[in-house]
Amino acid sequence: MSSSSEIMKLSPGAVIGILGGGQLGRMLAMAAAQLGFHTHIYCPDERNPAEQVTDRLSRNDYNDEAALVRFAKAVDVVTYEFENIPVESVEILRQHVPVFPSAQVLRVSQDRLHEKDFLNDIGIATAPYVAVATMDEAAEALKKIGLPVVLKTRRFGYDGKGQAIVKDVADLADAWAGLKSNDVIVEGFIPFDMEISVLAARGQDGDIKCFDPAENIHKNHILDLSIAPARINADLRREAVDIARHIVAELEYVGVLAVEFFVSSTAPIFRVNEIAPRVHNSGHWSIEACPTSQFEQHIRAICGLPLGDTTLYGRAEMKNLIGDDIFDMDIYLKDPDANFHHYGKMQARPGRKMGHVTRILPTVK
Amino acid sequence: MSSSSEIMKLSPGAVIGILGGGQLGRMLAMAAAQLGFHTHIYCPDERNPAEQVTDRLSRNDYNDEAALVRFAKAVDVVTYEFENIPVESVEILRQHVPVFPSAQVLRVSQDRLHEKDFLNDIGIATAPYVAVATMDEAAEALKKIGLPVVLKTRRFGYDGKGQAIVKDVADLADAWAGLKSNDVIVEGFIPFDMEISVLAARGQDGDIKCFDPAENIHKNHILDLSIAPARINADLRREAVDIARHIVAELEYVGVLAVEFFVSSTAPIFRVNEIAPRVHNSGHWSIEACPTSQFEQHIRAICGLPLGDTTLYGRAEMKNLIGDDIFDMDIYLKDPDANFHHYGKMQARPGRKMGHVTRILPTVK
Repeated sequence: MSSSSEIMKLSPGAVIGILGGGQLGRMLAMAAAQLGFHTHIYCPDERNPAEQVTDRLSRNDYNDEAALVRFAKAVDVVTYEFENIPVESVEILRQHVPVFPSAQVLRVSQDRLHEKDFLNDIGIATAPYVAVATMDEAAEALKKIGLPVVLKTRRFGYDGKGQAIVKDVADLADAWAGLKSNDVIVEGFIPFDMEISVLAARGQDGDIKCFDPAENIHKNHILDLSIAPARINADLRREAVDIARHIVAELEYVGVLAVEFFVSSTAPIFRVNEIAPRVHNSGHWSIEACPTSQFEQHIRAICGLPLGDTTLYGRAEMKNLIGDDIFDMDIYLKDPDANFHHYGKMQARPGRKMGHVTRILPTVK
Repeated sequence: MSSSSEIMKLSPGAVIGILGGGQLGRMLAMAAAQLGFHTHIYCPDERNPAEQVTDRLSRNDYNDEAALVRFAKAVDVVTYEFENIPVESVEILRQHVPVFPSAQVLRVSQDRLHEKDFLNDIGIATAPYVAVATMDEAAEALKKIGLPVVLKTRRFGYDGKGQAIVKDVADLADAWAGLKSNDVIVEGFIPFDMEISVLAARGQDGDIKCFDPAENIHKNHILDLSIAPARINADLRREAVDIARHIVAELEYVGVLAVEFFVSSTAPIFRVNEIAPRVHNSGHWSIEACPTSQFEQHIRAICGLPLGDTTLYGRAEMKNLIGDDIFDMDIYLKDPDANFHHYGKMQARPGRKMGHVTRILPTVK
């Protein structure tokens, strides 16, 4: 799809199919409803958060071809809330219904090697990396890149899963065994001062609008806090946004895409860590802090509607409520500055994202 | 229920039953979902806006006792989005599940005579009124009150329906015949400068929080614009809020209640036109303009949670999109200051509330 392609514009009453039933699908469905669209959730799991806010559900496996075809015929457009959907499923769907973001984008972002190759091809810095299939190859790569390195499975990693830091050659064997994969990249460990992300949206008409960069602070490899705007100077914020614009333009992307960066004090200041072809945890503050949330923006883009304004009101801070954090609900409900969100999950397991709280903070001069 | 009663506190995962499937039920369901509650809509109509944002629906008549009992047993609390539900239905439900606001409140607010009697009993000014059952009684009342008067059916009126202005005695017969009712009040026509409303919330613990008064401008007897705060001075705004507080306190009310006032330049400055035991069209701006929306506040109250902050950010203006107005959607989507809401209704019939747009305006010093 390019900016000269035909725009497939949907009107309220149309049905948006969403692959995946987690909190991102839930918040997408609520944003779609505000604009008058129906949603249809496709998800293999029972009791998923997104099904609570829609009247249309397919509880089927992502590999169930007949179910996918039925779903495709019941909706007007398909999108997804997570990038680990089989590309084959999207290939089946797109024979019957438009799918945004495209299968091509999904293919790139599902594989750390393809992703890094793409970024470097368009001139965007990443950590140095080498793809390896055996421990011997990993040992070679480690020599080339220099310690410390991070071993990462090429596919299906999230929240620190499928990763291992190697600081000493002696640790390589254990790290390798732990990954249980022969599709691995060895990545240079980049010392960085800050992690930031930019949520970029591109419409079917090629229009691009980005949200302000957010600064992301992790705890136990899970996002804990996002602060917007990121505490870097305005020139650097613009530079990060320009990189994100470049990425969505090159991908001829439709929808919202998250770009995660490492920020260093020495050149290259920005290295892209990864991209996610979807709305993203680090953009939840946009619900209250911007005229258009990342969720509404994604719905607008995939429905061929004009993108909305992304100006940030003041400063915002989003805190994830992980596991038992959710039981502090009453504290947040009593806090006049806190906007509390509960994802409707019944079991507060450790490490599970149960909700979040956004605060709009006074602007610092 | 009094402030010393036991508080029935619900936790996320509980199911909120909502009688009525219109846009108010829809926005209540979305607010409930943000707090992690499930919703179950009970509504006789097909294709109602609220069912699109929930996975639980009873499509049954309000007089279907067996269906009401099944519904009551499937939910943890019941509320309603409109006040013309038979009190008998609520009496059935409350034998199985708590219902907020109470059947007693519903009884008062469903009948213009009971409503006005209640208000005058607690010292709140209304227009002068006389209940009549025949045209002869209406003619007598008209003499007593003085022309012009408004004839209103005691029950089931909304958006100007069930009302007729009589400016000349000769018009009485036609006006009376048009009402097709023998349960009527004759009301003095109060010249007023402005109509305002106050949305007041009372929690199960007796805590009361009100939203700023909104100024309401009607077109063809349907709300067109709400502007918050109403353009009256701060002392008068406080006085209107105090009247609303008094009403919810006296009713031992639980939930959000709307109080509509006529504002005159001569005493009594405030006369209450009517109360509505529910969230209200004139409070939709609270979604974007306040930390807690009227919808979230109602859900908090009926679930025994602490009421939220109602501070108004700046000024807000809410415009109803009636009938064909909804087709201006793209204009609003392109306006960075407009927050667009579509209710998911498929047919844009004249006079039908299809959506609304809220703008946050710069504060006037």
